[in-house]
Amino acid sequence: MGKKIVVIGGVACGPKSASRARRLDPEAEITIVEKGELLSYAGCGLPYFLSGEVKDSKELMETPVGVVRDTVFFKNAKDINVMNNTLAETIDTKKKVVSVVNVKSGEKADLPYDKLVLATGGMPFVPPIPGKDLNKVFTLCCIEDARAIDTIIDKGDAKKAVIVGGGLIGLEVTEALIARGLEVTIVEMMDWILPQLFEFEMSAFLEKHLISKGVKLMTGTTVKEIKGDGAGNVTSIITDSGEVPTDLVILAVGTKPNDKLGADAGLKVHEKGGLIVNEKMETSDPDIYSGGDCVVQKEIVGGKTVYVPLGSTANRHGRVIGTNLVGGKDTFKGICSAAIMKAFDFSAGKTGLSEADCKKAGIDCVTTLAISPDKAHFYPTAKPIGIKLVADRKTRKLLGAQIIGPGDVSKRIDVATTAITFGATVDDVANLDLAYAPPFSPALDNITTAANIVRNKIDGFAKSLSPMEVKEKMDKGDDFVMLDVRMPFELEEQGKMPWDNTIHIPLGKLRSEIDKVPKDKEIIAFCKISLRGYDAQKTLEGFGYKDVKFMDGGIVLWPYEKR
Amino acid sequence: MGKKIVVIGGVACGPKSASRARRLDPEAEITIVEKGELLSYAGCGLPYFLSGEVKDSKELMETPVGVVRDTVFFKNAKDINVMNNTLAETIDTKKKVVSVVNVKSGEKADLPYDKLVLATGGMPFVPPIPGKDLNKVFTLCCIEDARAIDTIIDKGDAKKAVIVGGGLIGLEVTEALIARGLEVTIVEMMDWILPQLFEFEMSAFLEKHLISKGVKLMTGTTVKEIKGDGAGNVTSIITDSGEVPTDLVILAVGTKPNDKLGADAGLKVHEKGGLIVNEKMETSDPDIYSGGDCVVQKEIVGGKTVYVPLGSTANRHGRVIGTNLVGGKDTFKGICSAAIMKAFDFSAGKTGLSEADCKKAGIDCVTTLAISPDKAHFYPTAKPIGIKLVADRKTRKLLGAQIIGPGDVSKRIDVATTAITFGATVDDVANLDLAYAPPFSPALDNITTAANIVRNKIDGFAKSLSPMEVKEKMDKGDDFVMLDVRMPFELEEQGKMPWDNTIHIPLGKLRSEIDKVPKDKEIIAFCKISLRGYDAQKTLEGFGYKDVKFMDGGIVLWPYEKR
Repeated sequence: MGKKIVVIGGVACGPKSASRARRLDPEAEITIVEKGELLSYAGCGLPYFLSGEVKDSKELMETPVGVVRDTVFFKNAKDINVMNNTLAETIDTKKKVVSVVNVKSGEKADLPYDKLVLATGGMPFVPPIPGKDLNKVFTLCCIEDARAIDTIIDKGDAKKAVIVGGGLIGLEVTEALIARGLEVTIVEMMDWILPQLFEFEMSAFLEKHLISKGVKLMTGTTVKEIKGDGAGNVTSIITDSGEVPTDLVILAVGTKPNDKLGADAGLKVHEKGGLIVNEKMETSDPDIYSGGDCVVQKEIVGGKTVYVPLGSTANRHGRVIGTNLVGGKDTFKGICSAAIMKAFDFSAGKTGLSEADCKKAGIDCVTTLAISPDKAHFYPTAKPIGIKLVADRKTRKLLGAQIIGPGDVSKRIDVATTAITFGATVDDVANLDLAYAPPFSPALDNITTAANIVRNKIDGFAKSLSPMEVKEKMDKGDDFVMLDVRMPFELEEQGKMPWDNTIHIPLGKLRSEIDKVPKDKEIIAFCKISLRGYDAQKTLEGFGYKDVKFMDGGIVLWPYEKR
Repeated sequence: MGKKIVVIGGVACGPKSASRARRLDPEAEITIVEKGELLSYAGCGLPYFLSGEVKDSKELMETPVGVVRDTVFFKNAKDINVMNNTLAETIDTKKKVVSVVNVKSGEKADLPYDKLVLATGGMPFVPPIPGKDLNKVFTLCCIEDARAIDTIIDKGDAKKAVIVGGGLIGLEVTEALIARGLEVTIVEMMDWILPQLFEFEMSAFLEKHLISKGVKLMTGTTVKEIKGDGAGNVTSIITDSGEVPTDLVILAVGTKPNDKLGADAGLKVHEKGGLIVNEKMETSDPDIYSGGDCVVQKEIVGGKTVYVPLGSTANRHGRVIGTNLVGGKDTFKGICSAAIMKAFDFSAGKTGLSEADCKKAGIDCVTTLAISPDKAHFYPTAKPIGIKLVADRKTRKLLGAQIIGPGDVSKRIDVATTAITFGATVDDVANLDLAYAPPFSPALDNITTAANIVRNKIDGFAKSLSPMEVKEKMDKGDDFVMLDVRMPFELEEQGKMPWDNTIHIPLGKLRSEIDKVPKDKEIIAFCKISLRGYDAQKTLEGFGYKDVKFMDGGIVLWPYEKR
């Protein structure tokens, strides 16, 4: 008889590990236990079903050629038994038995195993807000949620929605609901949206875009209560900055791991939740593997333990587990906590460490803000992307990237992730032989240019201040001159800096009009994107100016009000 | 007085090295000598000017904010002297003097230098075909060529065009001329288009697309003569497979380095042409640097010396040279020979070594053909890309990638280049934490999946034949069975294999109908993309079949006729 393999969880990591194990071991007896009706569906696709981009929720359960992955499919195509509508209640790790119950019939069974996989996933964290159980208050966890919301909108029963939580899912749902004609307000407790992915100045760039699309943002705002009418339907939310009427509330404040089954069985759990696994994806019991949204994992850079539930990682985990289940040897080294999202006409992605992460970890980091077209600037479909790179000053290694804009973000995030994974320095990144043609990138790719700016900073050639540092100086009333080296027509187009002591001399006239720039003051040069700002710094230094810097990211990435 | 720096060549590498040197050394006296009128123009943009996508050829000479990079710009903004319309005739390396002549006035001058940069670029190779000097026979080298062709088309003086050479530039021009309403025939000497970038089966995938767009392909065809009328205008080309009437001929058979000036000065030149430089971009004379389209360079993988002229590399060279010119220390480690192009609705890119390169170099390589949607398959804009990966069987290192299709090719090429640069194995690539969301990639990115197939092959789990190997067996009349495991509806949609001994059993029925598959024959399984084909191989092996393989790439990447 073959090895008995029981897999608990039928969405991503579970079916992947089962399928992999089947391919490598035709003898194994493999059973998937899934508490829901449906298997192997693409939970990440729910916002796109809600928006109408995915027409039928069935598409989220099909293989690319349109086969629905149901119990019959798994049995016939893969000889894998699937017990759906079945809840795993307890694990006896000594006897190696899982006790399950059919949630429809109530029938119970004991499933013996040689190897067990916990792929129990995660679930939306529901904050303990009064009113959270009212009608038309949802999380977006499964297809049923999405269908229910869809029906409400179809019937015209919701004109206004409040999204509690400005994270990835909150923003994806926002876009979907705007597409369906709703008025949407995002309430985010932190001071800016996507606080776990982006730092203030990058998030600000995205916030401007969301606002231009009609999204109402209430950041730094806490929801106190959800109010309803006599019929139990939601009517408003009460926040610490006022009441917001609404017909629909989506709670999207985060995901938490379904680790209880494992924890109850005595498996090691992280203090903040999530099963702990080693590189082989073994839990603290070597006969029990775990992966996907129920485990914590290690970041490749810095080694921090994090909870980052993603369908992509779940699938990678599944393959490693599938190999190891049947005696193979595979390992999963960790993640870069890379993430990406589409938000209307913008994309926003991040990978690796942020500047704040570095500060917490005591790493002396150098950062840059660079914004430029994602294709040759003369190519008609070129669109800007803004990049924040974070690098280690001492080792010169690239540690992280945050990239936002209407241009091609995902390519540069994936290149950054790959570079970070292999310990690339900014010097390495700057000389990567990225494939060039005008429809795909500038001759020097954006990430190359950003890496070069970091090199210039580390090497002491480029001296800059972040927009936040400039703002702080403004607020303190420091005595400094802003030197605007843009062409005259750009000032109206792009806006002006809110600083009276600003001198405007286009770069091409700077040498001939150098006398207009005071030599005894601190000079902060800038242009649209601060490439000419850097040139201005070097020019002034050439004329003997001692205290010159440029402002990172130029006026385009200035995150505050302009004139 | 500052260091005297003379830069010969004002297009890409030259201005970049001059600008970089200026930023690092305000004292240096920097002069650019350019034989043409125009500076710093984007030669790679010419096809897009020709197509009409770039409206005004001036855009190719402007900075992103619309400043034309003329002699005044360089002087005022960067304090760099530019002598345009000026030809460098000789270099006296002992006296360290360049002799130049103004091509308009005939005025001569001697320019002394401390450090010299040769950024003399490349020029189209013009094959010695009788008739090459007829009217309306062009190369696409500079803006003047593009403008002349543009005028001919505008006047309606060309309805038919022949492109001699099916390389990058030939194809870009083809698309431009088709966009302008011309009938275009490509004549390529080799057996398939883009022979220097792609191997047969990948090129075939692109060829089908070109043909669907109305392009006439004459591969394996040599041009013998270009014929003209009494007025000296081209009327046809004569090839070894017949005469092709035409009103316009573009010769695009390759670029050769402008290395004569350096060679005459005694600098080391590669046997096939191109100045030889070291990692510091120094020529054999340490006071003379060179970069861009006039040098040969090293491939990072394998270390082969190659001539790959690209605007991106020229810019990277320029930065390294600029740093070293003024006493800094920077190096350029080499290239992956990465390249990409847009061809109508397809993109096509390659990086690193091909299977043929490996065979030449004696590397035992493993390859795969994988084709799948570039985004979550349920996402409406998902489009397929086909990937050929090449890896070293022994070291498991990724050595090369060729990627073609309507989906996002450029991201995966750049990820592959980055991975190859840092010596990643296919195991590393498979577990890269590439950023996932449905609008950007499948949960397991295409390159991850392709890497996993290679791993399965190296580890002996997956056994496959390339389509060429299958075709060879067909042509030899071998006794084997093709096992088609697709759904019935797919057969009409995707076509059938041209092999009588084909059994059709959808994967879901394979286990129950296993008796229909003969146990004593060689079985070659396939489906649309051969993912189910691989499953079929594993299923049959599970039932004790000994001689089972699947066909790489499935029917979608079958490069020959279908039924």
